[in-house]
Amino acid sequence: MATTLKGRDIIRIQDLNLDEVGLVMDTAARFESVLVNDGRLTNMSGKVLATLFYEPSTRTRLSFETAMLRLGGQVVSVAEAKSSSSAAKGETLYDTGKMIESYSDVAVIRHPVVGSAQELAEGSGAPVINGGDGAGQHPTQALLDLFTIRKEKGKIDGLTVALVGDLKNGRTVHSLSALLSRYKIRFYFVAPDALAMPSEISAELRKSKVEIIETPDLAKAAADADVVYMTRIQKERFDDPAEYNRLKSSYELNASQLTKVKNGMTIMHPLPRVTEIAKDVDAYKGAAYFRQAANGVPVRMALLALVTGNE
Amino acid sequence: MATTLKGRDIIRIQDLNLDEVGLVMDTAARFESVLVNDGRLTNMSGKVLATLFYEPSTRTRLSFETAMLRLGGQVVSVAEAKSSSSAAKGETLYDTGKMIESYSDVAVIRHPVVGSAQELAEGSGAPVINGGDGAGQHPTQALLDLFTIRKEKGKIDGLTVALVGDLKNGRTVHSLSALLSRYKIRFYFVAPDALAMPSEISAELRKSKVEIIETPDLAKAAADADVVYMTRIQKERFDDPAEYNRLKSSYELNASQLTKVKNGMTIMHPLPRVTEIAKDVDAYKGAAYFRQAANGVPVRMALLALVTGNE
Amino acid sequence: MATTLKGRDIIRIQDLNLDEVGLVMDTAARFESVLVNDGRLTNMSGKVLATLFYEPSTRTRLSFETAMLRLGGQVVSVAEAKSSSSAAKGETLYDTGKMIESYSDVAVIRHPVVGSAQELAEGSGAPVINGGDGAGQHPTQALLDLFTIRKEKGKIDGLTVALVGDLKNGRTVHSLSALLSRYKIRFYFVAPDALAMPSEISAELRKSKVEIIETPDLAKAAADADVVYMTRIQKERFDDPAEYNRLKSSYELNASQLTKVKNGMTIMHPLPRVTEIAKDVDAYKGAAYFRQAANGVPVRMALLALVTGNE
Repeated sequence: MATTLKGRDIIRIQDLNLDEVGLVMDTAARFESVLVNDGRLTNMSGKVLATLFYEPSTRTRLSFETAMLRLGGQVVSVAEAKSSSSAAKGETLYDTGKMIESYSDVAVIRHPVVGSAQELAEGSGAPVINGGDGAGQHPTQALLDLFTIRKEKGKIDGLTVALVGDLKNGRTVHSLSALLSRYKIRFYFVAPDALAMPSEISAELRKSKVEIIETPDLAKAAADADVVYMTRIQKERFDDPAEYNRLKSSYELNASQLTKVKNGMTIMHPLPRVTEIAKDVDAYKGAAYFRQAANGVPVRMALLALVTGNE
Repeated sequence: MATTLKGRDIIRIQDLNLDEVGLVMDTAARFESVLVNDGRLTNMSGKVLATLFYEPSTRTRLSFETAMLRLGGQVVSVAEAKSSSSAAKGETLYDTGKMIESYSDVAVIRHPVVGSAQELAEGSGAPVINGGDGAGQHPTQALLDLFTIRKEKGKIDGLTVALVGDLKNGRTVHSLSALLSRYKIRFYFVAPDALAMPSEISAELRKSKVEIIETPDLAKAAADADVVYMTRIQKERFDDPAEYNRLKSSYELNASQLTKVKNGMTIMHPLPRVTEIAKDVDAYKGAAYFRQAANGVPVRMALLALVTGNE
Repeated sequence: MATTLKGRDIIRIQDLNLDEVGLVMDTAARFESVLVNDGRLTNMSGKVLATLFYEPSTRTRLSFETAMLRLGGQVVSVAEAKSSSSAAKGETLYDTGKMIESYSDVAVIRHPVVGSAQELAEGSGAPVINGGDGAGQHPTQALLDLFTIRKEKGKIDGLTVALVGDLKNGRTVHSLSALLSRYKIRFYFVAPDALAMPSEISAELRKSKVEIIETPDLAKAAADADVVYMTRIQKERFDDPAEYNRLKSSYELNASQLTKVKNGMTIMHPLPRVTEIAKDVDAYKGAAYFRQAANGVPVRMALLALVTGNE
């Protein structure tokens, strides 16, 4: 049977097998080539996407909305779902899912609580895509990261990838490491002790064929890695401001450090950045983070089209 | 002269005569059959709807916006009109109406103050639709409720309809009872004393041919009614939290109570629900509230098309 | 070489030469005539506008969004950019510009801080239009004001224009006076001492061929002016509420004063108005402020189409 994602919810990156991941990558590449050549797509003409953001994330929301519009579709948007929606009146996400099913052909949800996307999906007959649920998952970010690595390096297998920063709370690195663990990858996990990758995640990853080197030393990792994936120390995930202030500047990459890295090393970041990457790094050829953000559009186009059967 | 709503504002349900209500119902049914058969409508192509929400109501806003998009039209949206608009600078709704007239072909307003929709309409040369003004009116909800009853029961005349919950503050039941009073209807008004239907509304209804039975006993009404219309006790309408807490659980329908209702009884609710209807009721065949919400799209499509002359 | 604005950012009104201003005027007039005749434009079909509002301005935002939709384009919108965006996480506008470049073909920014539009434009490869930056500039308002004067009076050269109200903080009058100073204009600057036009702006204007009469006397100016441009005393620009209360009612135009004005005098206002113009003035033939607001759509259509090369 041909691989298909029609009718599927995209909640956890682990729910996609390698064939399905490949289908997303190939569809994204196909859409991207149309856009690059100033072509027009009308796959989603007449269809409506609902974006429900219970937590601010301009980048993720605009990326999905642009993706839908570039496919010829339309968008209804709840940018401040927490305060302005039925949520304030006590509606469950299950019931919100029933609403969304009536009004749209596909939905994206961002929510501060783990499991929220799944609850919405249980209510909705229309496919639901998880745009990030608390410290849980951010599967579309992982897919666009993979797409970026493929484009930048021309391959996935055999690479050494350093994940740097808040590995404890960062759903981005949780989803990405789970996805990359299906391939032949060497990992560096670079974090201060207080923000180390949770041991249950590391344990799960070690069951696959990946190699993991844990170290707080960015310089050591950067000298050996093909890809350095920086992340922001997320203020909003800390209960204690003093702890945030102690750790926020743990890793700051600047141009002077780039003399000691592996030739052609690629720098990625899910953005927004604060001080993790100095502006003088932007001119470095391997600085891929803005290209990475742009890749969000074709990858999300692929997901929207695939789950609605309009690829 | 043929019945038409072109150029009309939809402010109070009483402003529509029965021919006009019939026109809305028939147009909604026609649009719905196109959507159900995966057809496309382009009636509003090139037209712009403005949605101005001075009070949060995700369901009403998304329902109108989806309706406009399903007609091939476009939307400009002010989801947080209270804080983010000219309102904060002291602009009158009359002047806002002048603005809206310049920017859109039709507007929907939701506002916490009775009479606001009328004030906007006086300023705007483009048709204005009332999406709920305080404890005043919610005419489009009444129309979609009527559409739902017609679909669920196959008729309106001769039905016994129980309205349950906060009948004092609920604009939904005010508009719906006014609309149903044009037909041959028996009403149960089921409410605690403190939340009884205002006597001036009851008196007005009694002038028509309807029969009204007022009781605080939901079981009694449910045993006799063809349609039980549950409503939420609206926290935001109470000044005193203690009073809200005393009354909020007055009526809670669950599956065990459904053994004692009239065969085929239909359950409706404008949503969002909190505890008025337990989740175990969802599986009951007559549980029509999610279908009712979905009916908001074709009914609002009909209104948007009719008032702009694009039906 | 033919005049073009393709690829240009619109940040300061001074950046446009008179040929470029003329191109905007002519393109706006052409688009307007299509709309007036119920025609359809598809110049921006398949293109996406991003509106980023870090400060509320419903009128400016909706005007730009309607303009884009009337050109057949699409919109992604951040109505509450300050709280809901990457800004809260500490992202620079330069980085936001990089994001916007990936997601849209053109962007409009409104921001409370002078220079913000320029910073966004430095990051973005897509054209950026300044929708108002603090007490700085509001170039598109100046262009729609010029368009309005041309339509109302049939000419620009030779007119006497009174600018009235908060000339100190009003970016609208700063941009408009700079634009009009390219023509043969006599100015009245009518303001209380505390809100007088900044001397550096007056000095700059005097370098051109304009004549400037500064007076706190509205009656005197109105008796002589062809155009009276009223502005709101902007509460949000005052640190001291007492000072605002002292000055807020400095100039209030009502119908009884219109007996002493020049025959055919035109009244303009960028809106929203509070008490500067009484409602009884609305019926006066020269009351152009609502027509002026409507002119925002064709002028912004022209700008969007010109900077993206889709005129």
